[in-house]
Parts: sequence; structure tokens; C-alpha cells
Amino acid sequence: MKLYICANGFTEDQLDQAKHCIEKLRIGHECSLPEELGRKLFNASYVPDFAPEEADLIISLGGDGALLAAARVAIAAERPLIGINSGRLGYLCAMSFDDIDRFDEIIAARRIRKVHLLELSLDGRHAYALNDIIVAKHNFGKTVDLKVAIEGYRDMDIRGDGIIICTPVGSTAYNLSAGGPELDYDADVFALTPICAHNRDTHCRIVSGDKAVSVSVNHESALIYADGELIGETSNSAGIARSDKMLELYF
Amino acid sequence: MKLYICANGFTEDQLDQAKHCIEKLRIGHECSLPEELGRKLFNASYVPDFAPEEADLIISLGGDGALLAAARVAIAAERPLIGINSGRLGYLCAMSFDDIDRFDEIIAARRIRKVHLLELSLDGRHAYALNDIIVAKHNFGKTVDLKVAIEGYRDMDIRGDGIIICTPVGSTAYNLSAGGPELDYDADVFALTPICAHNRDTHCRIVSGDKAVSVSVNHESALIYADGELIGETSNSAGIARSDKMLELYF
Amino acid sequence: MKLYICANGFTEDQLDQAKHCIEKLRIGHECSLPEELGRKLFNASYVPDFAPEEADLIISLGGDGALLAAARVAIAAERPLIGINSGRLGYLCAMSFDDIDRFDEIIAARRIRKVHLLELSLDGRHAYALNDIIVAKHNFGKTVDLKVAIEGYRDMDIRGDGIIICTPVGSTAYNLSAGGPELDYDADVFALTPICAHNRDTHCRIVSGDKAVSVSVNHESALIYADGELIGETSNSAGIARSDKMLELYF
Amino acid sequence: MKLYICANGFTEDQLDQAKHCIEKLRIGHECSLPEELGRKLFNASYVPDFAPEEADLIISLGGDGALLAAARVAIAAERPLIGINSGRLGYLCAMSFDDIDRFDEIIAARRIRKVHLLELSLDGRHAYALNDIIVAKHNFGKTVDLKVAIEGYRDMDIRGDGIIICTPVGSTAYNLSAGGPELDYDADVFALTPICAHNRDTHCRIVSGDKAVSVSVNHESALIYADGELIGETSNSAGIARSDKMLELYF
Repeated sequence: MKLYICANGFTEDQLDQAKHCIEKLRIGHECSLPEELGRKLFNASYVPDFAPEEADLIISLGGDGALLAAARVAIAAERPLIGINSGRLGYLCAMSFDDIDRFDEIIAARRIRKVHLLELSLDGRHAYALNDIIVAKHNFGKTVDLKVAIEGYRDMDIRGDGIIICTPVGSTAYNLSAGGPELDYDADVFALTPICAHNRDTHCRIVSGDKAVSVSVNHESALIYADGELIGETSNSAGIARSDKMLELYF
Repeated sequence: MKLYICANGFTEDQLDQAKHCIEKLRIGHECSLPEELGRKLFNASYVPDFAPEEADLIISLGGDGALLAAARVAIAAERPLIGINSGRLGYLCAMSFDDIDRFDEIIAARRIRKVHLLELSLDGRHAYALNDIIVAKHNFGKTVDLKVAIEGYRDMDIRGDGIIICTPVGSTAYNLSAGGPELDYDADVFALTPICAHNRDTHCRIVSGDKAVSVSVNHESALIYADGELIGETSNSAGIARSDKMLELYF
Repeated sequence: MKLYICANGFTEDQLDQAKHCIEKLRIGHECSLPEELGRKLFNASYVPDFAPEEADLIISLGGDGALLAAARVAIAAERPLIGINSGRLGYLCAMSFDDIDRFDEIIAARRIRKVHLLELSLDGRHAYALNDIIVAKHNFGKTVDLKVAIEGYRDMDIRGDGIIICTPVGSTAYNLSAGGPELDYDADVFALTPICAHNRDTHCRIVSGDKAVSVSVNHESALIYADGELIGETSNSAGIARSDKMLELYF
Repeated sequence: MKLYICANGFTEDQLDQAKHCIEKLRIGHECSLPEELGRKLFNASYVPDFAPEEADLIISLGGDGALLAAARVAIAAERPLIGINSGRLGYLCAMSFDDIDRFDEIIAARRIRKVHLLELSLDGRHAYALNDIIVAKHNFGKTVDLKVAIEGYRDMDIRGDGIIICTPVGSTAYNLSAGGPELDYDADVFALTPICAHNRDTHCRIVSGDKAVSVSVNHESALIYADGELIGETSNSAGIARSDKMLELYF
């Protein structure tokens, strides 16, 4: 099997753990790493053996943060993804470092969920999210003033920190902290959850998965994040809808 | 058209208004009323002209409370329902008393939503709900201790006031007050919303419309309400799922 | 020392535990029990040796529910109170059944908090609360419509389940479940916390301990509870303020 | 009377309005402006007539944001402050631009509240806040992990967006958006309100005004804001307590 292995945010200890893990995987599998990771872990002149598109499986080493970063690789390459958890938060990871000897067995069991993604359209660019898209204020010294529309119909205004649009997979992450509900993996919906709105005539909305959402900025500008990564800034509007692309995720 | 007209909770003023409304409807339609209402409005020996099952349409005069009561009649008779609103809360009503002269026109437009109902199974009995089913403590001097399962899998425990299971139509009623989200009319889901839970490891859950929920009582007993009507008491468990029956509701 | 010992809601097991506990306390102390408890625990013709007013200390056996009931006795008799916890919730109890052999030592340490009480005025009657006073709907098939005033000034309307007025001691009980904050024991305030209000222009209010609150009923009637005990029903209004009485509570 | 007049964030229209307002105030009062404002409003070589310390009163032209900025000047100069509101949010302002002709009358009525301030200690520096101090994550792609102690005792951990420590005056601002309660102006307390905490064993705490709070950072670093102004960054800890300084604020 051809494995493309991603990891991020590692301390010295974690790098050792990752190295150990990759050595185990190399027994019986072809492995390729992003150039930067390979140079950090193996040698300064490391060159990837193959690109993600040529892999059978993308692997994320780390916690949920690492998995969200690896998901960007898996989505672009249209390859399945498995998370191997080292960290303290691993809702999205199918297995942990301690199970590494059972890797082949776990892969063979094929416990895969084909999950919907959100697609962000921002000034002609596109980005994808497994967990959530956030339209937020610049920092904690400000607020944003947003207008949210569903299928073109004005739904609510939010003056406060911003809004989360999340998938079922992402519903137990930031959405839950902001007071949103947990969404059943099977439910064909996503959640629009205001973040600390100062206007009280607002609340979480659950919309059908086939609805298109737009978030417009009433004053100044807002920042837009997909799966925790800053995508851009807008003083205009961002479109969010279910993507045609899906991700195969081991669970 | 044969109209079966329900109303409830009327003051002297409201009875006058209802009478006026019914007199308008009688011009061009056959009307029948529940015996008790007919006797209160017309004469002490009033007998309904026909049963709800023989009507073309069930009419609710009043606010959302009246409509929920009329829905029980409409569901049992498997007839469509329209709410004519007099009161201060009328989310569920398609028109108001002031529009009564446009009744035929509104009916002809057939703006109808075929909505899912919840079915409660309690000790062999069945009840239906358009808005919500509530499993709650007896009174505000007590709490209940509930165990909630989805498709047989233990999902959460609730120690507090109780739980709301609501449909999209009912999501803006009690569910919203208890911190639950508004559900898109088109979304094939319902919400499980804890009411003032003292244990913090609990939150609202959105489940697919095809999932069966059971609520069990861990200590003593709980009361069960469907659309605000007390159905019974249990120290055992109640089953809640989407009904095969649907209701045609004008909006 | 003269001990007046209260207990409630006991199962067979708990009665045995209470009996064991009382037998320990009788070594070196004079003990008296409420007639009903004495008859249940000892013999059918039990007569209390002395009234609560003659005791040096009131003892509650059980959890927080038992302590709230015993507090009514301690407040009326103006005697200090200690809770000996058997149950699963014992925030208010200073010691547990397992510590019974250290009872004299714990009493000698005199870790006592002199805590404020709430006083309810309802149609000329008065009741006291250590934890909270609740003005609530009759049952979960209804709502109440309340008007809250602070020092005579209209503060907010609540259409929903009701309102909690709680002391710092009571803030971690029902108040927390309803979304209210924890109040520092030293803070000279109480909290007014709406319970599942449907109108969104409402939120928890923290008021100075010297303010008088009144809760009026806009439609029909509401039930009033002090420390979980039903005090009465009103279609008019209830007054709540800090009592001149205080309770000495071991912690 | 000697007036020191502050303003900020003005559009062309608002600058005109401010100019008009200042011209009215100059009839019968000596007025001084910060250099930058004077140059923008009057002429490029404007020099303040006197410093804030020499004024009888500091004036804020604008909304609540402007008032918080002017409060920094008033606190440093130990002078009273009045807000003249032009904008849409003016809870803290005693009068509006439309009342400008009644300025002398309003000042003469001396409706002044002497309000407590929060004092932030951060790496040897000090800052003051009329509304709130916020310890927060860097941006919406991250979280912070904080440890909160009251008088040296560990109170709670917060993993999420951060924490607000607010005064009664500031309680209806960001605190309310984050789910905190409104604090009575007379109550000698402040509120510690978690912002979107992911760990559920946390809730708002109301502490006595004389308690010292410290917020420590468990991982990486946090940003600290006083009244919406970024004060600094810390990977260590920040101290927050009631200041000895107070502010005289017209209301």
C-alpha cells in the first residue's frame, strides 16, 4: 500500500514518536512524506517518493488539529484519510499510536465514513472544510456586523464575534463551545451557530444540507477561516454550501 | 366545502370574534363544530352536522395553543388543517381573523406543507405530536433523572427538568426557550433538547428523522406531554419516533 | 450537647444508616428527633425529648434535599445547622456518614458560615429560603407570564417556565442548571435567573442583597416554591427580599 | 468651566457634527482637544490649550467605544467624565448630541456615579478598565488554555476563546454576549465569564469586589485587552483586581 504521511506541530518527543510510527509503517508499505516533514524527521535532502495523488491512503499523525491539516491534502488529492492520534483531542482519529501494530488489521476492516464537506466561495477562490467555516471579527478588541442569508433569503443579523457554519463531523468542535448542538453523523444538515452575538434576536439554525448560505459584512471587514486556517478577509460576502466533493474518513 | 371548526380557551370577547368568523365561513361552506363549542356559541342543544372524518378541512380558531389542540383532531381524522389566528402567538397559523374575507382565496392557493409527526409509545398507548413531546419532572420542587438512547444506544443522561423531542415545526416553540436551535422546515431531523440539566456533560442533539429515541426514568417517575397535553406518567420508559402519519398544514 | 436530628426520604438501607449514626451521636450527646422520624426509627410511641428551640444544634441526615428541609426547622428555631451527608449530592453538607466518629472534633473546629436567607411574602404569609425561591408555571403543558420589579422599578418580563431568585449558597443548585452564575459566598448579592424564557430580551440579573424584588403574574396564576417546597399559588404578586434572619451553617 | 474634549473614529459627517458640538460648548466654556483631533477638526497647527489634568471635566463625543477611549484619559488625569452620544450604542453616555443646548443644565444636575475600575497587572505594567479586561486567544484559528485563580485558589480551567472579567458598568457589553449576567450598578462584585469554553465544567462566577483574580496561560500565549484596547501578550499570567482609583461618570 502507498501511504502519504502528514504531521504537524511536533515537539522533540512527538517527533521521536512520529519517527517510530513511520518506521513501523515502512515495514510492508511504501511511504512518502511532505518534503518539510521528511527533512525534519530523516535527512536534510529528503525528497518525497510520490505525491499525495499517487497514494492509496493519506495518514495524519497527531491530534484533531493535525487531521484537519491532513484533510486539506486528502481532499485536494481525492484520497481516503485516517488519523493516528497522539494528542489529547482525537475525536476525528480512528486509532492511536499505541495501536500501530494493528494498522493493517484496522485498514482491512474498512470502517469508513464518506462525509460531506463545506465549500467556501470567497472572491472567486474556493476552500473546503471538513469541520467548519468561521466568519469572525479580527480580534477581541472589535466586533463584526454580519447578515446571514439562506438560499438568498435574509435569515438573521449577527453583531458580535461571528458565525460558525459546521458539518455533522465538526459539530462537536467549536460549534459545541459556542452553544450549538451535536449533529448526528447521518443527518443531512449543517448548523449555523452565532458566536457571542450581542443582539438577542438570534439563535442557532439547522439547515438542510442542500441549502446555500451567504454571509455578508455590514461594516468594515471580517476574517474567514476554514478548518481553523485563515483563508482571507472580506468586506463583502462569502458563500458557503455543501461541496460536490466528499472525503472518505476512517473512524 | 365541509369545514370542521375547532377553538379553545375563549374569553367573552374571543367567543364573539369566533362567532363572527364562523358566520362568515357559513356563507358558501357547510360547517360543523364539536358539540361543546357549538353549545357554547350557538344553542344548548347543538349537535354537530358531521364528524371531522367527513370534513374536507379542519379549522383552528385561536392561537398556536388552539392549533395544537385542533391538530389532534386533524391527525385522528387524517384531514388537512388551517389555523386562523386571533391571539398573540401564531407561528403555526396561516391567516388571521382579519383575513377572513379572503378565506376562499387562501384555501385555493393551497400553500400546504406536509409535515412529519412524532409518535409517542407509552405503555402500549400511542399519541402524536406536531410540535414536541416532553418528558419532564412532576413540578418545580423536584427533578427527574433520565437516560436517553438513540436506536438503542445510550446517548446521554439528564438530571434536571427533563427533555424536549421536537419536530422542525415545533422547534421555535419550547425548544427555543430551552436553548435548542431552530430547525429548517425541510430538514429531515428532530432535536433532543435537555431542559435545565444539572449535569453539564449534556447538550442538544440533532438526530436523523428515521432514528428511534427512548427516554427511560432512572429514579421515581416522569410525566409525558405531547403538544402540551399530559399523556401519562411513567417510571419505566417512553419511545419516540417519527410517525408514518403526516399532517397537511396550511402555512 | 443537645442535638435535634432531622432526616427525610429514607429507604430501608438509609434508615439503617441513620439509626447507626444516631446511636453514635447518642454517646456523649442528648438527642431528640421529630416524632414521625423517631417512631419510624425506634418505636411507635416515640416522643421527642426536647423541641428544636431547646437544642444546641440541628443535624440533617441525608443529602442536600434533607438539609433544605432541616434548614426550615433550624431557621424557625434560630439554631445552627450541620449536614451529615449520605446521598449523592451534598454541596451543603459539612461532613459525611463516614466521618461520624470525628463528629465532636468537627463541631469543635466551628467552621461556621453565617448565611443570609431570602424571605418570601405571599398574601400576608412568610417563608424563608436558604437556597432559592422559584416562581414557576403549574406544569410542563403551560407557561407563565411574569413581570419582575426591583425596588419597585419594572425590570423585565418573563414568558416561559418562571424565575429563580437565589442566594450565594443556593447558586450552584437549580440556578446553575438554568444558566445562572455561581455566586461567591462572600458576595452580598442574589441572582434573578429566568427559567427557559421564550422572550429573548431577558437575562440573568445580579442584584445587591439589600434590594427588594417583586414578581407579578400577568395572566392566570403561578406556583411559588421556597427551597423546593410548594408555598402557594398566586395570580397577584410575591415579594422576595433578604431576611433579617440569618442561618449559622457548618461547612 | 474647563473642558477637555475627546472623540474618535469619525467619518466626514461625524466630524461635522463634532465640530458643531464643540462650537456650542465653546460658548461659555474653555475647551481643549487632543492635538490630533484639534488638527483634524480646526487647523493643522492646533496646539491644546491645556492638558486633561487641568480640565474640570473630560468629554467624550461618540458612542460607547469613544467613551471607553476617553475614560483612559479621564482615569489617568483623575477627572470626571461625561459621554455625549452620537452613535448607535450609547449605554454609557449621559446625553446625546441633540441635547447639546441643555449641556450646562445637565452638568449642573450632577447625576454622577463614582464607579470602580479594574486594574490589570501584566509583567510590571498596569492598565485600567471601566468595562472589562479580556484574556483571549490570538485569533479564530486557535484556542487558549487558561487557569483562573481567585485569591490564589485555583477556581477553574478554560479551554476555548478566553475569559472576560467585567465591572457592573461593563456587564451589559461583551459579558452579556458571552452569556454572563447583568450586574446591578450598586453590587460590589465583578463577573468572571468564560468565552466559548470547550470544557463544560466551567461557568460564570460572580466574585466580591475585594477579591484578586489571576489568569495563567497553560500553553503558548494569550492576548490581554482592557476596554477593547490590546495591552499585551503573555505566556505567563495576568493579575486583575479592583483598582484604588475610581472614575466619576455622569449617567
